[in-house]
Amino acid sequence: MEKRLEILITNDDSINAEGINLLANIMKSYGNVTVVAPLLPQSGKSAALSLGEKLYLKETYREEGLIKYTFTGTPVDCIKIGINECLSGKKPDIIVSGINHGSNCSVASLYSGTLGACIEGTIYGVPSIGFSLNTHDPSPDFSGIIKYINVILDNFLSNPPATGVYLNVNFPNLPAEKITGIKFARRGKGMWVKEFETYEDPEEGRYFVMAGHFHNLDEEEHIADHKLVKQGYITIVPHNIDNTDYSEISRLSSVWKL
Amino acid sequence: MEKRLEILITNDDSINAEGINLLANIMKSYGNVTVVAPLLPQSGKSAALSLGEKLYLKETYREEGLIKYTFTGTPVDCIKIGINECLSGKKPDIIVSGINHGSNCSVASLYSGTLGACIEGTIYGVPSIGFSLNTHDPSPDFSGIIKYINVILDNFLSNPPATGVYLNVNFPNLPAEKITGIKFARRGKGMWVKEFETYEDPEEGRYFVMAGHFHNLDEEEHIADHKLVKQGYITIVPHNIDNTDYSEISRLSSVWKL
Repeated sequence: MEKRLEILITNDDSINAEGINLLANIMKSYGNVTVVAPLLPQSGKSAALSLGEKLYLKETYREEGLIKYTFTGTPVDCIKIGINECLSGKKPDIIVSGINHGSNCSVASLYSGTLGACIEGTIYGVPSIGFSLNTHDPSPDFSGIIKYINVILDNFLSNPPATGVYLNVNFPNLPAEKITGIKFARRGKGMWVKEFETYEDPEEGRYFVMAGHFHNLDEEEHIADHKLVKQGYITIVPHNIDNTDYSEISRLSSVWKL
Repeated sequence: MEKRLEILITNDDSINAEGINLLANIMKSYGNVTVVAPLLPQSGKSAALSLGEKLYLKETYREEGLIKYTFTGTPVDCIKIGINECLSGKKPDIIVSGINHGSNCSVASLYSGTLGACIEGTIYGVPSIGFSLNTHDPSPDFSGIIKYINVILDNFLSNPPATGVYLNVNFPNLPAEKITGIKFARRGKGMWVKEFETYEDPEEGRYFVMAGHFHNLDEEEHIADHKLVKQGYITIVPHNIDNTDYSEISRLSSVWKL
């Protein structure tokens, strides 16, 4: 009998998100699934750790081939406790993160907790992939994901990314029949602007809440991930955890006077 | 009269750390300094944002050429509020983060709040540099930094990193006269192992606290940052915010069947 894959799943929208529960159901056909999800939403937590905090792990569901836990930390913490405790120190065969409610294209990939989990998986040497859907709707139309996720997973399993590389997959917010296709892409250029709203509290004084909107800085429609998703493509960006700029080592070494 | 530089400073150890206060004093000789530091320690917060939280900004100190604020968010939040509010929407000429109490070599650079601030500065298009000292001692020997930081800053100002690139500078925990030299380096390979300690609370049950130690995975003594710091070098790693792996786009495009 063929050995079943061991699959570790997390996200940053918490155990209650529809995205992670759909993902867990999809992944059951690929192997044994262990879900370790944040107890509370952790959107925008990047690769943050919870240093010095008391962290609580709780099993919340168990059936043949599927166990779910909550953990009171970040997505990175979930991967760490998932491997160290839930899988008894044994690395899973793959790590799958998401399905995130919201795009992780362009600079969002730097802030994303969904992808923070993939960074951690990659540090552990486990092939890791993150899925995101370009809407914050808590009950979105998942038909595009249901139609296309298996072809992506099948390729990911037969030809995983190179050592040090994780995959960032973004789905447009479209029903399956409206999706244009699947394309490899690079991280698009952009930034957030007008980032805070200011409020006045009679007791505690002035405070700020993060707001803002995305500002495009990229004209390369054929390769920038956020531009392609806008055109109806599913994008796949390979990100490398080693972001050393080797050409800058050479250039700066030659011009700096040290 | 020459225009004075506008300098924005943050860290992840909070406003009370000796490192940031030394850095603010050093930077005063380069221009007008605005410090926006986390009110509370934010070590290991990576490029995390505080989405949906009430964030409080407070001016704590002012003299000619130096203003200090605390902010209740992460280092990334500090850069955002620093530019949007404290500098009235005007980008500073440079961003300087640190001096971190603890190494940010190897994978620590992925978890580092000090470098999260540099990522944010780089998204804004501002030349950004982070300084870290390889000890968690709250009152360390800063003599190596005091001796060598000016030559690094002078080069950073005359030959800043390319667009999209920030610099990660790590100092060995040595007195000035014991430092071997300054070298450009790449991010060394390694990971943390045995990552949690388990405790039993009579009321709340079992909980975990992050622990663990660094495990080296790199044999290239001459280029891996954490190995060079161990040899007594100050290391400078140029990191690129675009961590797209372009060679993997080509390779995976040719082998995946989409």
